[in-house]
Formats: sequence, C-alpha cells, structure tokens
Amino acid sequence: HKGLSWRDEPCGFSEKQNVAFAQSQTYPVIHDATKVVKDSWAIVQHLDAAYPDKPLLTNRSYAHFINSWADTVVNVAIFPIVVGDLVERVRPQDKAYILESRGKRLGTTDFAAFQAKARENKGVANFRAALEPARRVLKDQKFLSGDAPAYPDYILLGSFLWPRTLSPLELLDKDDVVYAWRERMLDQFDGFARKA
Amino acid sequence: HKGLSWRDEPCGFSEKQNVAFAQSQTYPVIHDATKVVKDSWAIVQHLDAAYPDKPLLTNRSYAHFINSWADTVVNVAIFPIVVGDLVERVRPQDKAYILESRGKRLGTTDFAAFQAKARENKGVANFRAALEPARRVLKDQKFLSGDAPAYPDYILLGSFLWPRTLSPLELLDKDDVVYAWRERMLDQFDGFARKA
Repeated sequence: HKGLSWRDEPCGFSEKQNVAFAQSQTYPVIHDATKVVKDSWAIVQHLDAAYPDKPLLTNRSYAHFINSWADTVVNVAIFPIVVGDLVERVRPQDKAYILESRGKRLGTTDFAAFQAKARENKGVANFRAALEPARRVLKDQKFLSGDAPAYPDYILLGSFLWPRTLSPLELLDKDDVVYAWRERMLDQFDGFARKA
Repeated sequence: HKGLSWRDEPCGFSEKQNVAFAQSQTYPVIHDATKVVKDSWAIVQHLDAAYPDKPLLTNRSYAHFINSWADTVVNVAIFPIVVGDLVERVRPQDKAYILESRGKRLGTTDFAAFQAKARENKGVANFRAALEPARRVLKDQKFLSGDAPAYPDYILLGSFLWPRTLSPLELLDKDDVVYAWRERMLDQFDGFARKA
C-alpha cells in the first residue's frame, strides 16, 4: 500500500522463537530498522507515523472500530466453523502445540466434531449475518474505506485470509456484495493476497 | 449539533397518520421546508447536504458502518431484554398495535415471559459483549468520532435512548467505558437527551 520494500518470514504455529525478539507470543510482528512492533493495530500506527505518505489510517476511529470488530466478532465467528480443518492441516511439528492451545480454548480436542456441530448449528449463516454492517456499506461503495482500500479493508481481508489458507469451506455466498469486495481485495497488488 | 431551529412532535406507536405525509410506516421522519425525509441514515445525509456547516458525517463510511451496526446488532440485542417493559408501558391506545406488530415479530404475545427468558439466557451479558468494538475505541478516546461527538455517537446514543425511556433495566455496568461515554452524551446540549 505504501510502496515500502520488505521481506516476510513464513512461520509455523509453534515457532515462538521467531517472535521472541518482540516479546510476543503471537503473530504478526514486524522488525523495521531498529523498531520492533507487535499486533496489527500497533503495527499500522507505527507504519503511518514512520511513513506518513499514503496513509492507512484515513480515519483513525473507523479503523480502530473495524479492527476491534474483526477481532471480537468476525474472527470469533469463523473459528468454530473451520477449526477442524485447521488442526487437520497444520504441519506435523505444530500439531501438539495446536492440540494443546486450541483444546484449552474450546474445552475439547475433538476438533472435527466441534466443527461439525458448529456448522450444524447455523455457524455459517450466523457468520454471514454478523457481516451485515459491512454488507450495507459495501452495497453503497467499492471498499469499506470508500473508493480505495485502506486499513479497514485490509484488516477485514485478514479475517478471510487465514480461513482461506486452511479450509475448503466457502464462507460467503457468490451473490453477496461482501464476496465481490473480497474478490476486489484479492486482486489488489497483482493478486498478492490471492497467492497466500 | 448544527444549531438549527426545529420543533418535534411526540407520536405514539400507532399514530401512523403522523408520518403518512412521508409515505412512511416508521419513525423518524423530518419535514424541512419543502423536503420530506424518512429514516435516520437518509435524514443525516439530507442535513449535511442542506446545511454543510458543522458536518455530522465527518467520515461517511464510518457513519454508515455504525448506523448499520446499531440497526442490525445493537438494537436487535436490546429488543428481547426490554420488550416486556415496552409493552407494559405503551399508551392504552397503542396497546393493540404493539401486541399485533411485536407479536408477529417474536412469534408470541407473552412478552413478559419472552423478556424473562431472554434475560435468563444471558441477554444482558450478550448485549454488553456485542458492544466490545465500541468499548475498545472508547478506551482510547472520548467519543466514537474522536474528541467531539458526530453521527456515530448520536446514532449509538439513539440505541440507548429508546430502552431508557421505557425500561428500568440498567443495560451497562457502571465501570464500563461505554457507560461513561453514555453519560457524556446525555450531558450534551445542556442535558437534552437526558430529559427524553
């Protein structure tokens, strides 16, 4: 978005040593010159402060609200309906870690049964219903941020990218304006996110 | 907010003739010179277009998102936990209308039992949890819109005003930053909303 140069380092779930330098237990983490920043919301604030050109936070309050909504509503609604697929697909060396950490979160390690029950209990329909505020905005405009994407769009896309890389479940109906928005987002930067 | 002069007309639930001039079945409706506008979101757009001074839509996308979130999440979460109180308190001449319209919506006319069950089923806790995105923003700043209120704050306050006028239920915990925000909103314009 800002045209900065960067490189990423793919990390497995259990490779905590990769983020230890940031005193973090979770991704994402960035290392920018001498500065180390963890957590998406902190990272975007650092990026806009350090590189004010092409701001990501075109409206800080809106960005913060969408960031919190993605964390507490969208990701929370997705997790139960893909957790079985997630556990099935993690690398062998991450399996024990995932079983323990996600088992604690869900109170069971039968993730396949948990996922099946969540889907039976209208998990997909409930997830789609939870997207209604975004849907209404996207009926009126191309991106959550207006004519061009900014942080609200990128952070919501993030909520779609992690299930996309690990589950064959189609989260959205093809006729949904959110589906069309996601396609536009996946097309950004020569289809960068689509290759994830 | 804009310093315009205006007068309101208190209306009962069943007094559809009061809004018939706007081809509307619901409130709110405004009559501004020759212009008639119905629905909060349409009204705020009219007001900002007709009176650009002191804009309400400081960020249109954010305002639209919060408007949709209030409609589809916040109001929907409040309704079941206060509907019994609402029906008990409507004016006698509105009772038949409320019984029919809300009965259709809920599939029962035993509103007291419906409300009791919703409260037993963590209705209040679920409502408070649904406010989490707003809560995270309000931990950082005085208003959803920043240092001063704008449309996102007014529309969310609306979600608190209708239950406030008809139910003794305390929707928020006193230690909640959303509670403190609501107090600030009720204090605006010499306590105008507090007198509702």
